[in-house]
Amino acid sequence: MYKIINTQGGVCASDGFFADGVSAGLKKNSAKDMAFIFSEDECEVASVFTTNKMCAAPIRHFRSMGEFKTNFILINSKNANAMTGKSGIDDINEVLSTCKNVKNPIMSSTGVIGVRLPKQKIIDGIKLFDYSKKDSSSASKAIMTTDTFAKEISFKVELDDGSSFSIGAIAKGAGMINPAMATMLCFITTDALVSKSQMQEALDASVKNTFNAISVDGDTSTNDTVLLLANGKSGAYEKEAFKEALFNVMHFLALEMVRDGEGATKLVTYNVTGAKDDREAEIAAKALSDSLLVKTALFGEDPNWGRIASTVGASGVEANEESLKISFDNLCVYDKGELYFNEEMEKQCAAVMQQSKFTISCDLGIGEGSFKAYGCDLGHEYVKINADYRT
Amino acid sequence: MYKIINTQGGVCASDGFFADGVSAGLKKNSAKDMAFIFSEDECEVASVFTTNKMCAAPIRHFRSMGEFKTNFILINSKNANAMTGKSGIDDINEVLSTCKNVKNPIMSSTGVIGVRLPKQKIIDGIKLFDYSKKDSSSASKAIMTTDTFAKEISFKVELDDGSSFSIGAIAKGAGMINPAMATMLCFITTDALVSKSQMQEALDASVKNTFNAISVDGDTSTNDTVLLLANGKSGAYEKEAFKEALFNVMHFLALEMVRDGEGATKLVTYNVTGAKDDREAEIAAKALSDSLLVKTALFGEDPNWGRIASTVGASGVEANEESLKISFDNLCVYDKGELYFNEEMEKQCAAVMQQSKFTISCDLGIGEGSFKAYGCDLGHEYVKINADYRT
Repeated sequence: MYKIINTQGGVCASDGFFADGVSAGLKKNSAKDMAFIFSEDECEVASVFTTNKMCAAPIRHFRSMGEFKTNFILINSKNANAMTGKSGIDDINEVLSTCKNVKNPIMSSTGVIGVRLPKQKIIDGIKLFDYSKKDSSSASKAIMTTDTFAKEISFKVELDDGSSFSIGAIAKGAGMINPAMATMLCFITTDALVSKSQMQEALDASVKNTFNAISVDGDTSTNDTVLLLANGKSGAYEKEAFKEALFNVMHFLALEMVRDGEGATKLVTYNVTGAKDDREAEIAAKALSDSLLVKTALFGEDPNWGRIASTVGASGVEANEESLKISFDNLCVYDKGELYFNEEMEKQCAAVMQQSKFTISCDLGIGEGSFKAYGCDLGHEYVKINADYRT
Repeated sequence: MYKIINTQGGVCASDGFFADGVSAGLKKNSAKDMAFIFSEDECEVASVFTTNKMCAAPIRHFRSMGEFKTNFILINSKNANAMTGKSGIDDINEVLSTCKNVKNPIMSSTGVIGVRLPKQKIIDGIKLFDYSKKDSSSASKAIMTTDTFAKEISFKVELDDGSSFSIGAIAKGAGMINPAMATMLCFITTDALVSKSQMQEALDASVKNTFNAISVDGDTSTNDTVLLLANGKSGAYEKEAFKEALFNVMHFLALEMVRDGEGATKLVTYNVTGAKDDREAEIAAKALSDSLLVKTALFGEDPNWGRIASTVGASGVEANEESLKISFDNLCVYDKGELYFNEEMEKQCAAVMQQSKFTISCDLGIGEGSFKAYGCDLGHEYVKINADYRT
C-alpha cells in the first residue's frame, strides 16, 4: 500500500527541480510570458503530442532530437511558432543556443499561429532567468493565454518501505469550449526513480481518461504537448503508486482546463454507460460534450433532454429510444420510452443545472461499454473572446 | 438543350398542386403553424431522411407504409413528435384519419423533441384547410421554427420539343450554425412525368452537394426530411433537365438555410481543392464549416488564417504546411510555406470578411480531390436563441 498526499509546489515540489516565469514583453502590460523548468540532474523524458498534421515547430524540433536526456524546458506564450516551416526550427535552435549550462534544452510555445517567433525578445528574456528560483506558480502564470487562472498541482507519494517521491505539474488550458484545437500544454516533473519506458507507459495510460476525455479524438491544436521529466533523485518508485499519482495530476489539471473553458460557467460530466463497447461510449460522450446545442442549453440552464437524445442518436453509435435512459444527476427524465418530464421535474432539473458542477448520464441499454467525458457550457463570453482573439 | 427559368409559386408552381398554411394555436400569437400540400392526382414519392438513430415518429410512420402513391402531406411546426415511441405513431394515425378525401397521407413535424403531439389542436387545424388554395408562401411560413424568413423557389423547364414542366419547393432551415442536429424540412413538387426510380436517383445525386454540403456527415436531427412528389401532369420529362432543375432547387434552398443560420451574418463557401480525393476534400471542408474557432473569427471579421490551417491539420486528412495554400476570395495569405500576411494584407482580408458572402479556399496541394461546403459565422445571437429555445 501507499499514500498519495496533496502538497504545494507544482513543478518544483520534486527535489532538484527549479522553475520561474518572467516578462519578456511578448504580452502587454509586463505580464509574464516566458517560463523555464530546470533540473540539477539530467532527466528521462516522456511525451505526448498533438496529432495535428500541421504540428508546430517546437514539436518537430523535439522529434528531430531522437533519444536524449534533458535538464531544461523553455516555454513562451503569445506565439505558437506554428506554420512557420523550416524557419520555425531555425528560430528555436538560435534561441536555445543562448541558454547557458543546460543539456539538450527543449522549447515549447503557445499563442498565435503563423507568425515568426520574436527571437530577440525571447533571447533577452532568457537572460532574466534565475535557475535557482523555485517559483512554479510564477511559471504557471507565464504560460497562460486565455486562461483566467493558473493551473498547478503536486502530490507526495509515501511508499510502505518508508521511502517517498513527489510528482507535480503546471498546465495551461485552451479555448476549451470546443477542446478541439486550442492549445493545451502540461509539464510534469517527478523525482521518482522511474525508467523512460515506465514513464511513457504510465503517461499513455492516463491520457485517454484525462486530457483526451476533454478533447475530440485526433482533433487537436498545432501545439498540444504533455512533457514528463524524471530526475530519479528520490531513489523511490512503485509502479502502481506512480501510475495513480500521475493519473491524479493529469485528471485534476484536465478538469481545471474544462472549468476554465473560455466563458464557461459549468463543468459537466457526461457519463455514458450501456454502450456496445467502450469505444462507442467514448464517441457518444464526446458527441455530447461537443454539441453546440447541448452546450448552449447548459448555458441557458434549460433541461432540454431532447437535444441529448438527438445528439446520441446522431453520433453514429448503436442506440435506440426503446432502451435509452437519460438523467440529470439522479433525476431520470426518460427511461426506455417512458417520459418522466413534467413541470415539476423540469423545475428540479433546472435546479440541478444551476449548479457549477453536475452529471448528465446516458445509459444506452445495449451493452457494457462506458466512458466519462467532461465539458462545459457555451455562452456569450466565448463568442466575445474568440471573435477577436488575436488583438 | 433546355431552358430553366426562375418562376413564382413554390410548391404550387406545378400544375395540380395546392398548398396553404393555417394557425392551429401551436405557436404563440396566432402565427401559422400547420401546412398542407395537396395534389389532384396521386403522386410518385421519393425521399431522403435523417440518419439519426432516434429518428422521429413521422419518419418511422413513412417507412412503415412500404410502396405507395400519395396526394397529401400534412406538416406541423412547434412539435417534432420525436422520442415519443409507439404513441408517436398512434398519434399520427389518429390525426391523419381525420383528413378527408386524401390517399395515403404523409405527416411531417418539426419543433421540440420529447413531447406528445398536441393531437386535438392539430385535428382542429386540419378542419381549417382549404384544398383549393394555391398559397405556397403561406405554407412556407407555417413550417418555420427559428427561421427568420420563409424559403421557397420554383423553376419552369422548357424542353426542345416545346413541352415543359415545373418544379418547386418550400423548406425550413435549422439552427444552422451547427448544421448538425437542427431539423431541416424540404418539400418539392413537380408535374414532370418522372418515374419513382428516376426521381429517387436524381434526389440522391443532388443531396451530397446541397443539403449534405451544409451538414456534418451522418450527423443529423431526429426529423430531417426531403420529400419529392411528382404527379406527371405536364406529360413532359427529360433526364438531364430534370436533374439540373432539381439540383438548382435544392442548392438554392440549402444556401438559403445557411444564410438564415441562427444569428448568422455571413454566408461562407469553403472551397477545398488539391485533396487526396473528393472524400478527403469533403472532410476538410466540413471541418472548416463546423469549427467554432473559425466561425467566431468570421463573426469578428478577423482573418485568422492560422485557425484555418490548424482546422485542416486536425481534420485527419492528408495535409502538410509545405504544400498548403490559403486564400480569402482572391487574396492568398499563405502559399507553401510563404507567409503573405502583413498589415496591408490583413486590412484587405478584413475587407473581404466584411462582405455578407465570400469564399475561403484551401488548396491542399496533394491530389485532385475537391469539395465545396457552406457555412456561416457564430455570434451572440446564436447563443441567445439556443440558450433557451424551448420557452
